[in-house]
Amino acid sequence: MSVVDLAQFMDDLAARSGEAILPFFRAHFGLDDKSGAGAPFDPVTEADRAAEVVLRNLIRATFPDHGILGEEFGSERLDAECVWVLDPIDGTRAFIAGLPTWGTLIGLTHHGRAVRGVMSQPFLGERFVGDGATATLHGPRGPRRLRTRRCGGLGEAILSTTDPRLFAEGEEQDRFRSVEAEVRLSRYGADCYAYCMVAAGQIDLVIESGLKPYDIVALIPVVEGAGGVVTAWDGGPATEGGRIVAAGDPRLHETVLRRLNP
Amino acid sequence: MSVVDLAQFMDDLAARSGEAILPFFRAHFGLDDKSGAGAPFDPVTEADRAAEVVLRNLIRATFPDHGILGEEFGSERLDAECVWVLDPIDGTRAFIAGLPTWGTLIGLTHHGRAVRGVMSQPFLGERFVGDGATATLHGPRGPRRLRTRRCGGLGEAILSTTDPRLFAEGEEQDRFRSVEAEVRLSRYGADCYAYCMVAAGQIDLVIESGLKPYDIVALIPVVEGAGGVVTAWDGGPATEGGRIVAAGDPRLHETVLRRLNP
Repeated sequence: MSVVDLAQFMDDLAARSGEAILPFFRAHFGLDDKSGAGAPFDPVTEADRAAEVVLRNLIRATFPDHGILGEEFGSERLDAECVWVLDPIDGTRAFIAGLPTWGTLIGLTHHGRAVRGVMSQPFLGERFVGDGATATLHGPRGPRRLRTRRCGGLGEAILSTTDPRLFAEGEEQDRFRSVEAEVRLSRYGADCYAYCMVAAGQIDLVIESGLKPYDIVALIPVVEGAGGVVTAWDGGPATEGGRIVAAGDPRLHETVLRRLNP
Repeated sequence: MSVVDLAQFMDDLAARSGEAILPFFRAHFGLDDKSGAGAPFDPVTEADRAAEVVLRNLIRATFPDHGILGEEFGSERLDAECVWVLDPIDGTRAFIAGLPTWGTLIGLTHHGRAVRGVMSQPFLGERFVGDGATATLHGPRGPRRLRTRRCGGLGEAILSTTDPRLFAEGEEQDRFRSVEAEVRLSRYGADCYAYCMVAAGQIDLVIESGLKPYDIVALIPVVEGAGGVVTAWDGGPATEGGRIVAAGDPRLHETVLRRLNP
């Protein structure tokens, strides 16, 4: 499959998963939920599973020898050269709350390295696409090249983290707080959207902990393609998840690594 | 002016302010900011001021005897029977970070009571409109009646607050945390969007502190029109801002007031 076909295939994955998810987003809007009896209707779980089935079926049919690692249905052929890493709904709490900052993460690794990624936000019609060398937003206002912005230091930085309570109390929490104390502005609650805003030059820094591979793999080629850096706190590859730092400006990334590893 | 005309006028206000703001949202996207010298370009302040000028001019031309209270340009004729209460960009930090959860708040008070409100999110093309008796979302997917949902108690509730650091350390912080500790899910960072999700039956509870009148007046008729309750922590009117509790289910509101006023 050529590079162009691969981009088209990933676009199809984004489109089809979006169709599977959207009927569940804000499904209760304006309804008086009278269910009560029986198992409660859980829109986010339904949407998550429906979308992952769609994604897996498309991948299996097109690339039968590729591996797949997904949030809902586990892993298959992880020793394959190419492995797809899928999170149908990253930001389930935003989804549940009706907020549009969740996204569908579709990543591709080649010999373990994250080489392609899409963050698709079907409710907004936005797709943030990257291949490690370039990154583009395809949205209702047309395509737009993504570039991170320069950031002279922590005092100028806008920081985002999904939830400060995700850091383990004690040393981990303290290290995060020591960075947060110095930034210009810190913002909570953006999930995968925050990484895309790093790629877009709107946010300078994302610091998180406890991520799974499927929370981050798709976002690495987007942030890197826009000129940023994504690693673990110890500077190692981010592909395994865990504690993650993403920065738009590589100098800021270096500064923050030193602060997180005193 | 008839009720229908008033709804149309508020729709015009939303449309015109959106046109003033949108060119500034994500204005740096894909640009390499080389300004450096001179005063820094501050898109959110520019957008805030441009939109408030547009709103004030339209209101003055149409209702010369109405009062106006705005975030950027202060107040005029606050003793008038009808006063417009304006926040062109509620959620400036979301705006700065490129996140679509900010909104333009346009409220109308009559003898001090919040009787009409719009939260307009022009980037998403969404307008949440309320008159205290009904509430509607006008969006790209057509109009949708808004109704809060029932919530049996704190253990079932989804709570949102813009930033837990906004509560004063000590008693205020402790009271908030005591409620937060019992909810099913708590979510940070949604600003005015959270109140609209209460109206939509997606979020059950918003608790905040340090609000200005223009942060809340427009949202009261939306939440109340959908079946919810918005008051100060002490149960008094929310129109003055300060410490605010909004709940979709009136019983949950009562429960929370008791917890916040032990």
